[in-house]
Amino acid sequence: MIVQKYGGTSVGTAARIRRVSRRIAATVRRGEQVVVVVSAMGHTTDRMIALAQSVNPEPPARELDMLVANGETITAPLVAMCLEGMGVAAISLSGLQAGVRTSAQHSRARIQDINPGRILEALREGKVPVVAGFQGVTERLEITTLGRGGSDTTAVALAAALKADSCEIYTDVDGIFTADPKVVRNARKLTYIRYDEMLELAAVGARVMHPRAVEIGELYGVPIHVRSSFHDGVGTMIVAQVPMEERQRVRGIAQETNVAKITVLGVADRPGVAAAIFEPLGKAGISVDVIVQNIGRSGHTDLTFSVAESDLKAAVKLVKAAIKDVGARSVSSAGGIAKLSIVGTGMLGTPGIAGRMFRALADAGINIEMISTSEIRITCLVARDQVEKGVRILHKTFELEKS
Amino acid sequence: MIVQKYGGTSVGTAARIRRVSRRIAATVRRGEQVVVVVSAMGHTTDRMIALAQSVNPEPPARELDMLVANGETITAPLVAMCLEGMGVAAISLSGLQAGVRTSAQHSRARIQDINPGRILEALREGKVPVVAGFQGVTERLEITTLGRGGSDTTAVALAAALKADSCEIYTDVDGIFTADPKVVRNARKLTYIRYDEMLELAAVGARVMHPRAVEIGELYGVPIHVRSSFHDGVGTMIVAQVPMEERQRVRGIAQETNVAKITVLGVADRPGVAAAIFEPLGKAGISVDVIVQNIGRSGHTDLTFSVAESDLKAAVKLVKAAIKDVGARSVSSAGGIAKLSIVGTGMLGTPGIAGRMFRALADAGINIEMISTSEIRITCLVARDQVEKGVRILHKTFELEKS
Repeated sequence: MIVQKYGGTSVGTAARIRRVSRRIAATVRRGEQVVVVVSAMGHTTDRMIALAQSVNPEPPARELDMLVANGETITAPLVAMCLEGMGVAAISLSGLQAGVRTSAQHSRARIQDINPGRILEALREGKVPVVAGFQGVTERLEITTLGRGGSDTTAVALAAALKADSCEIYTDVDGIFTADPKVVRNARKLTYIRYDEMLELAAVGARVMHPRAVEIGELYGVPIHVRSSFHDGVGTMIVAQVPMEERQRVRGIAQETNVAKITVLGVADRPGVAAAIFEPLGKAGISVDVIVQNIGRSGHTDLTFSVAESDLKAAVKLVKAAIKDVGARSVSSAGGIAKLSIVGTGMLGTPGIAGRMFRALADAGINIEMISTSEIRITCLVARDQVEKGVRILHKTFELEKS
Repeated sequence: MIVQKYGGTSVGTAARIRRVSRRIAATVRRGEQVVVVVSAMGHTTDRMIALAQSVNPEPPARELDMLVANGETITAPLVAMCLEGMGVAAISLSGLQAGVRTSAQHSRARIQDINPGRILEALREGKVPVVAGFQGVTERLEITTLGRGGSDTTAVALAAALKADSCEIYTDVDGIFTADPKVVRNARKLTYIRYDEMLELAAVGARVMHPRAVEIGELYGVPIHVRSSFHDGVGTMIVAQVPMEERQRVRGIAQETNVAKITVLGVADRPGVAAAIFEPLGKAGISVDVIVQNIGRSGHTDLTFSVAESDLKAAVKLVKAAIKDVGARSVSSAGGIAKLSIVGTGMLGTPGIAGRMFRALADAGINIEMISTSEIRITCLVARDQVEKGVRILHKTFELEKS
């Protein structure tokens, strides 16, 4: 059994819905059991949000969910009826009908449970279930949406619940690349990538897969095949362990340009201060990324951290309010920054990777403002206008063009 | 408690949604409990059907219902969030959430039961429930739509279930008129009309209210106020009994131009023949209207009946197939006909009304092809190019311009 997920671009027009349906029909005719998950057509969701804001600049999240969920419940019956017209029995299912039960946090609900009764019934009847992605219902049958990466999450969660052999994510790119092909001309498509590598890449700027879906795939061991909906070529398999010959020290490079930094000078160096500063940001839904704290002198320290530049204004306001309580000398901020990251399980226990990265950037005259690392990732914050140059240099340094 | 229903034109744009919301807010601020029912915005439903047909010329009814039901579940949250923005607590509800349980006949489901639990809960919490009209769910939670007049039906059925004081149907006309104001310049808006009169007018061409909603109103004694969403003027109240001074012999005149006739010559004059001809039409969903059968001679008779001209081709095919079994000389058909009807409870037991109608048409040189009557209606089939002249003449003959 295969779960196939088609994103908004893949179903953006009637012609594309016909093409997607032909692909589903071909899979069915090969004898596979297929469950389909679809996103809203093209820019439907954006248009609905714009319409919402034209009647209420701050629409309540519950009502916004009721509204935007229609995007997917429009696509699903269109695909189902297109399949029927091609002689392939199909049935569309809303999130509710597909048994997708979620938490009640509107606009960012979490899938709690999937009761795939109706999906299994459809499969028994020889029908292709076409499920509206991105949405679910609470216990009270309130409509929820899953937030960014929602349809991917629906697809992988369904694959897990149905114990499907794999989950295919059809998208408008060919797979996962060693770097953004728009930045690095000879970036190479990866045949395999590990869940943890994909998670790190997604976290630091690779837009193809949202981390949520990858996490579920890892947790339930669902192989995820990221591939193009425009041709039949294979894409990238996201799996637990890549074949020996596929391993490399550095697997991929990612950049993220929507970055700004905030520096709090002269903070009291005592327990609870960091919490007092970061808690209000968390409550406001602002993700804080790289955090650097200098070694304190005479009971005070400096704290620098990065946030999305689109969150900068709100973040500065909250930080200024917070330091009134805990005390600090001043708050400064700056935009125009970018994150430049290398990711790869191969770098675990391989000394010298970080050194090569810093040396290559230094030789190219790129100044590193902050550094953050995980076990399989090294991230440098650099000036935004230098990040693409940095990506190209690192791609060459680690010879990622070679397979 | 008032149920207010806003049709597609009334909510066709963001600006109109704001206007509708201001009206709802004003009603709430007068201290009324309001339940709102909305249709799909403007031509949304037509556009969805066109999209469906571009992927499958004959979309399965179940999938088409899944698709078009989104029209109303788009409008409902938009109105709810607009009200919230105006400081009026509101909550949108899909047909499912509003407890609208229907039969399983897709595209023409019947409301079987309404469980208004969530609507009552919203009202208790001081919120305006904004219900998606035109839709419901079966016991299996399959999405259904109610067919023509569906949102009106939802509104009146909700008013009945909630024992509301009245149901206001907001539309793009000012109310029910003695005749189509586009045809008769001095047509008069009726302040009151009886359910049975409205049913007859709707059945013979008055488009403002669909008979289904009026029937439910009559059955449960829900006063229906048909009024304009563009201004505050009162419209027409549809009630069980009109005030004494409002009674008139003839209440209104309606025309219907999509009419054709089929004549079956030389049919055997024995039991079962009419059934053999009309049963297949009924099964195909073709309504047969006026039926005239001549007195038989030598065991044979001629049968003439009217159908919608848009059904003519299909109807002729079915009739030709049917007469192969029962025997008949020939089948002929003609389009270009119209129905011209006068309606009014006042004509019950008032001799001479029919005579005045026929005389007035004859004096104007309008030939009557067929006649059909109910207790409160007389319908003449006339040439289509003469029907508007006929409406004007009858309006004058029965002095309908005078209140």
